[in-house]
Amino acid sequence: MATTATPDTSDTTAFTEADYAARMARAAHDAVVAGLAGLLLTAGPDLVRLCGHRPRPGTGRLTLLLLVPEAEPRLLVPETERAAAEASPGAGAVRITDWRDGQNPYSAAAGLLRPSGHYGVCEVTWATHLTALRETLPLTTFRPLDAVLPLLRAVKDAHEVARMAAAGAASDAVYEEILAARFTGRTETEVAAELARRLRAHGYGRVDVTVVGSGPNGADPAHTAGERVIGPGDMVVLGFGGLRDGYGSDATRTVHVGEPTAQERELHEVVRAAHRAAVAAVRPGVPCQEVDRAARTVIEEAGYGAYRVPCTGHGVGITVDEPPYLTAEEPQPLLTGMCLAVVPSLGLPGRFGARLETTVACTATGARPLTRAPQTLAVVA
Amino acid sequence: MATTATPDTSDTTAFTEADYAARMARAAHDAVVAGLAGLLLTAGPDLVRLCGHRPRPGTGRLTLLLLVPEAEPRLLVPETERAAAEASPGAGAVRITDWRDGQNPYSAAAGLLRPSGHYGVCEVTWATHLTALRETLPLTTFRPLDAVLPLLRAVKDAHEVARMAAAGAASDAVYEEILAARFTGRTETEVAAELARRLRAHGYGRVDVTVVGSGPNGADPAHTAGERVIGPGDMVVLGFGGLRDGYGSDATRTVHVGEPTAQERELHEVVRAAHRAAVAAVRPGVPCQEVDRAARTVIEEAGYGAYRVPCTGHGVGITVDEPPYLTAEEPQPLLTGMCLAVVPSLGLPGRFGARLETTVACTATGARPLTRAPQTLAVVA
Repeated sequence: MATTATPDTSDTTAFTEADYAARMARAAHDAVVAGLAGLLLTAGPDLVRLCGHRPRPGTGRLTLLLLVPEAEPRLLVPETERAAAEASPGAGAVRITDWRDGQNPYSAAAGLLRPSGHYGVCEVTWATHLTALRETLPLTTFRPLDAVLPLLRAVKDAHEVARMAAAGAASDAVYEEILAARFTGRTETEVAAELARRLRAHGYGRVDVTVVGSGPNGADPAHTAGERVIGPGDMVVLGFGGLRDGYGSDATRTVHVGEPTAQERELHEVVRAAHRAAVAAVRPGVPCQEVDRAARTVIEEAGYGAYRVPCTGHGVGITVDEPPYLTAEEPQPLLTGMCLAVVPSLGLPGRFGARLETTVACTATGARPLTRAPQTLAVVA
Repeated sequence: MATTATPDTSDTTAFTEADYAARMARAAHDAVVAGLAGLLLTAGPDLVRLCGHRPRPGTGRLTLLLLVPEAEPRLLVPETERAAAEASPGAGAVRITDWRDGQNPYSAAAGLLRPSGHYGVCEVTWATHLTALRETLPLTTFRPLDAVLPLLRAVKDAHEVARMAAAGAASDAVYEEILAARFTGRTETEVAAELARRLRAHGYGRVDVTVVGSGPNGADPAHTAGERVIGPGDMVVLGFGGLRDGYGSDATRTVHVGEPTAQERELHEVVRAAHRAAVAAVRPGVPCQEVDRAARTVIEEAGYGAYRVPCTGHGVGITVDEPPYLTAEEPQPLLTGMCLAVVPSLGLPGRFGARLETTVACTATGARPLTRAPQTLAVVA
């Protein structure tokens, strides 16, 4: 059976075999630092990112990438998918073996593992596979990566950042288009659907975020979009993001239907200053909590500390929301190549909110914005 | 964050609250018969089918449906998805509780379970969730459904069969269109892409199967589609299937570029007779192996036993390939409401093959075809 799943990559920035080799080597290295014997990746975004092979979706047949320090990466695939694996762009960097229907793939996998080893497995590994591996290797431990190596994919290489910049540019175009749209008289969900449509039209294979928070809904950080009809005088928080060519952007802008009041302008200005301070704090070696603190300080000094959302951002990459998190408690230092959505947010409960979010890459010289749409409080119709 | 994932349902046949209630009651009953204390369903097609709630895709936040005999179904959702859960079509048949960020969802789930119970968990449950549940409830056992209850979704209710019939009708239309297409001079992958395009145009949200096996490739049951250029005199096996409104069809027809030879016609006639015999054998209470035997007997009596693919079909439902399997070893009796792809196949290695596949529903009076395209060996250009 051939599979034609909804594409979320069109390979605008080609990844090379060297890219995959470097990613796998880094992952194996990180595993050692985390005290693991190695990493086991089953079908999912981490597998695709690390070795370039995209298993046929929806099948229960085991595909497994094994990364162990100082050893060649091994990719175990169903025999029916061997040709596809060999044609994948990272194929030259892994040793491919296959199993055929009727064989036990878990025994084949077990032969590659240390019986008493501690391995990290990707979060999305199916219960079926994990249970069978545990039964085949009762002395081996398997721990999900969110517990043992949450930053596996946090650091992006140059080609990945290029894909994220392309996603960001497409997101900027969507924002420019939505500014010309009519807001008055439409429900939030109608505007959200338009955001989704425009993201897809600009190449987004997957849309994750379409927030439209008008008036009091903009003050609720958990609000997505509802049946409220947008009208004159509304502040409107617009969030939009997803994956384009397999890599994400997440962006938020606040707009206003007609002229804003002085208080609305002030709230937006505080958020904008907090955003500026947070982005300015992004630099290799700076702990995540310092980025959060930079935003918080601006907000508190402006007297809005009580109205703040207590998280200034999150990682973005092959998902739109992943570690590290920019919170007051997160000591993790930023590293070159981490990509972050910086998103301070203020909400006056029952009245309105302001939020501003850009995706940036951490470079040696500081933050490089990947989404670049204007940050002013735009007036819409 | 609002989510707009690629839809694979457009709800042409509405499911009622009573449908969901009946599915959940049946699943809980089947769990008892299988010796389980209950079933735990995390995000995935089984959860959607059973309770109608579709969690935001791609998030790691726990959603959990708990089905226990003689108790109200319980649905645990992230607080941010409570409104969506309450708006889902089966909401009235479950008791919804939520957990909020910062709380431990596994403790919340643990409060609903018997500490020493044996539970079935869906195959696609993430390692992250399974591991956390195990750590929270060390005396509880969790076994994937493929091991303990593989037929959980095999029996469909009337509204599900109606969706499958609609998918089948759309698949018939695709076949009618492809017969008018030009085959000569095109590669298999080009024709496969056209099949995928046409399935999508007819409402398929997900395309799983696009097989184009021309000439010798048609004799290889593992072949999908390759770079072979189709030419005059080729037999071509065409397989096409996927999900429409969340329910599947799987169909295969064999066509010929120009007039077939007598031997090609004969092979096709044997497959067609085997297919007819297998479909005629479908009836409640008949073991799967009897359906396989019906097809095998026809093939062996025609002298083609050595060229037979040793599996006559498989279940279809919310996936296009699932239990039960129509093999010589499978004693499972058919039940009213099971839907099956009946697909005998013959291949003369290195020369050509013939395959014929229809999706049928098992009814009290026998097989009801859900795909109905003509079964003759069509001549194409």
